[in-house]
Parts: sequence; structure tokens; C-alpha cells
Amino acid sequence: MNVFVIGIGLIGGSMVKDLRLKNKEADIYGIDSNQENLEQALNLGLINKAADYNDLGQADLVIVSIPVDDIIVELPKILDLVKDDCLVIDCGSTKGLICQAVESHHKRRNFLACHPIAGTEFSGPTAAVNGLFKGKTNIICEVEQTAYKLQEKALELFRMFEMRIRYMNPLAHDKHIAYVSHLSHISSFMLGKTVIEVEANERDIFDMAGSGFESTVRLAKSSPAMWTPIFKQNREFVLNSLEEYIQNLQEFKTMLDTDDYDSIFQVMENTNRIKDILTMVQ
Amino acid sequence: MNVFVIGIGLIGGSMVKDLRLKNKEADIYGIDSNQENLEQALNLGLINKAADYNDLGQADLVIVSIPVDDIIVELPKILDLVKDDCLVIDCGSTKGLICQAVESHHKRRNFLACHPIAGTEFSGPTAAVNGLFKGKTNIICEVEQTAYKLQEKALELFRMFEMRIRYMNPLAHDKHIAYVSHLSHISSFMLGKTVIEVEANERDIFDMAGSGFESTVRLAKSSPAMWTPIFKQNREFVLNSLEEYIQNLQEFKTMLDTDDYDSIFQVMENTNRIKDILTMVQ
Repeated sequence: MNVFVIGIGLIGGSMVKDLRLKNKEADIYGIDSNQENLEQALNLGLINKAADYNDLGQADLVIVSIPVDDIIVELPKILDLVKDDCLVIDCGSTKGLICQAVESHHKRRNFLACHPIAGTEFSGPTAAVNGLFKGKTNIICEVEQTAYKLQEKALELFRMFEMRIRYMNPLAHDKHIAYVSHLSHISSFMLGKTVIEVEANERDIFDMAGSGFESTVRLAKSSPAMWTPIFKQNREFVLNSLEEYIQNLQEFKTMLDTDDYDSIFQVMENTNRIKDILTMVQ
Repeated sequence: MNVFVIGIGLIGGSMVKDLRLKNKEADIYGIDSNQENLEQALNLGLINKAADYNDLGQADLVIVSIPVDDIIVELPKILDLVKDDCLVIDCGSTKGLICQAVESHHKRRNFLACHPIAGTEFSGPTAAVNGLFKGKTNIICEVEQTAYKLQEKALELFRMFEMRIRYMNPLAHDKHIAYVSHLSHISSFMLGKTVIEVEANERDIFDMAGSGFESTVRLAKSSPAMWTPIFKQNREFVLNSLEEYIQNLQEFKTMLDTDDYDSIFQVMENTNRIKDILTMVQ
């Protein structure tokens, strides 16, 4: 099996790392606009060979793990080049515009729109790890638009990664993911910014930071190159979620301003439910 | 040595757990307004005996680990009852009002104002763990107000816990901690609230939540009984930090609203520095 990974970073790299463990026969080709990433991926043994679009005709599986604005541009070109029984999957954190970009492509049935909800705050080939997807959710959109045989091939792959599958339409995906992923990133980035701004002497402040701060601010280490296009593509839903978040913060501020500690207690107690909800899901 | 722990939860419980490991001879007494906590603490072997204020005259060390509003009320009474060579420490997340509450107490020199920056989102005696304080920072305020011999005794204790010590004045402590701890909690609680509000079908949403959401929202599991008085006591500094945070979120929203993706990229890239700062501190 010839596997092509386009964009050999945290996600694509972790996928082929797992794939290689389970399927020793797979030949893994890497395509990346960043030459340094390609060389790192070769040195780390993530890929067997650096390749380019001219080689795509040999692919049995193509994993597209590049920023979401690049997916929109590259995906139609990739589909143009693959053979009829090749499966192409993406890993983008938005699904609406990506599905739109190929909706009338003559090879639409070769493509399965995916969002594996897994990652860390690190990026690049060195961030790739084994088992990143184990037990994680993979959201598949517009499954009915993909050829049946290629759906099966994809499910086999995701079973190998030990992922849970959920099917959604692209719009519902983009709306919900704005709340449970995109908003968290903005919240974390702005928290980091607020704290960095507060004083010149960072060492003094961060020395006081406990693990609570560290976990809340962890996502502020994420890659701007990956996240800027995500916010752009999911602009409407992210704006909604951000507005509701700011509204809630302002209400909290008013409670504190007016010494309404009963309401502060109540809102925290109500939100404690997050404990049960998160436990239920695990 | 007779050790009294007043408020036998996550912090007090973890302290005596470590203490017992290192000092087998210590007799550990628990005082708690919650009878259930006391029984749990006995069953878990955190304390040897349930006690009350009438026994405080026997104490060599008193650890006060109760909510910060209770500290203000109880600390003067506790100081009234201890003998001259007894060390009393608190563990409160605010320091200004606590130091004020005992500033002219005739036994002020028996008290050392502390804030061990350690914890988890769990609470109660069952949340107590060994090694919670290892490598963590303990902020000591107004050290010069404590008797020299008792300072020494306290430092020996903190060395046993393997904590790093920092000295600050209460006002500086309260200002900085508003940013690196209190604000993180509000940010996390309001994020949890926003996401819980968005839809009735929580299972559907949280199933999509990755580890990023989970770490950002972790602090929303914290105890309202502990946190309401903290926000109350540190009201001014928390309001300032909250205002700056909302301001930053609003600026981000404006950037997205006006499709200013260069600025979005830039602000995230600038905030990525948090990576180096947090690494530097560790």
C-alpha cells in the first residue's frame, strides 16, 4: 500500500507513525511545502521517501494534514491526480468550506471529510507521537458522498487507530466545534496575553503560576499558522461563541462589582456539572 | 510534636499526609466544622484524632486550611489559644485581608502568612495526596512579623515538603495572583458555562471535546465554597484583571469581525512566548 501524507506535522506524522506500526508493508511518501519538515520526517523515519504531486497517481491512501485554508486550494488538485480506487481524507478542524470546495468535483467520491479530534499544543514532525488517536473521536462529514468501498477502507484505518466514529453534517460540526475547541483556544490565547501584558518582570509573575494557570494557558502555545485559517473559515460560529463567552464574563464581572456573591457561588456550582459531563464522556 | 490541622481537605490533608511520612512521631489532630470530613480524615488515616479549639493549647504547629473568609474570623481566635512557641500557618489564596485581620493581635509573631501554590480541582479529605507540594512555590508574606524561631521552624517544614520559597508583601501577592490564578478560574468557569448553555444535548457536544477543551475547562470543577470568598477578598485586583481580559477578547473579536487575519496571527504569535516563559520557570 502506498500512503501519501501531505503536510507532515503533528497530525499527519502521528497518523503514519501508527500506520507503520500496524502495517509494516506500507510505503509512506511525504509531501510538504516546507523542505525542512520533509528532511526531519525522513530522519525521524516517519516517511520512506519525499515525493511531490507528480507521484500522487501511485497513491492508495492520501492523508491531507495541512492548514484548512490550504486544504481548500489543494484538495481539488489532489483529487484530480489520484487513481479511481484511492481514498483521500483530510484532518481539518473546519468542515463546511472544505466540503463546499469539492462538492461538484468529479472525484468527490474519493474523498472522506474527517476531523480527528486529537492533538497537542506542539507542531511539526518532531511533535508526532504514537497512539495520539487512540480512544479519540473522529468526526466524519457527508459520509454518503464517499464511495462505499472507500468508506470501508477508511473505517478500517480508523479502527486501526482505535478511534470512535461520529457522523455529522458539516454545518453542525462547525457550530459545535466553535464552542468545544475554537473558543477554548481564543480563551487561552487571550489569557496568556493578559498575563504577559501585566508586568515587565515575567519571571516574577510566572514563578507564582500554579498548575491551574498552566493548564488553562496550554493552548496558547498552539501554532498561529494553523489557527488563523481555522478562525477565518469558522468566522461566524466563532464570533457567536466569543460573544456569548464575553457576555458571560461581563455578567460575572457585574456580580463581583455589585458584591453579589450568592450569584457567583451559584454560577460556579451550576458549572461544576462539567465534572459529570466530562466523566460521562470518557 | 502535636500538629493541628484546621480544615482537613485537599491542602491540609496533603500537608499532614507528607508530614506523617517524614515525621513518624507527629501526633496529628484534626479540627473541622464538617463532621463527615473529620470522620473521613480519621478513616483515611490523615489524622490520629478529632479535636476542637479546647485542645489547641497543646499544639506545636497549627495548619489553617479553611476558606479565606473563615480564616479572617478564625485566625484571631486560634492565636488567642495557642502557646507561645506554637507556629500557626495559613494556606489562603489571598494575603492582604488575612494579614490585616491579625496585624495588631498580641500573638501576631506566632503566625506566618503563607500561600502554597499547589492544588488540584478536587476537594475534601479524599482529595489529599502525597507530594502535592514538591517543587511548588510557597509565597510567604510579612515574614518580618513572625518570630525568628518560628520562621526557622516553618522553613524546615517547607524544606520537608520540598517547596521553593518566595517572599512578597501581601498587596503584591494579591495583585499578581489575581492574574495567574484567580483570573484563570473565572476564564475556565465561564468557558464551561458558555459551552453548557449552547445546547440541551450535552452528550453530543462533549463527545466532540478534545483534550484542549478539557484542560482549559479543568478549573471549572473547582469548589465554589472555596472560590467565592477568594473572589470577594481579592475583588479589586480580580476586577482589574477581568476587565483587561474582556478587553483583549473584545479586541480579538473586532479583528475577526473586520477580517484582520494579520493581526490575529500576530497576537497569537506574540502570545506563543508563554511557551518559553513557562519552560524557564520549571
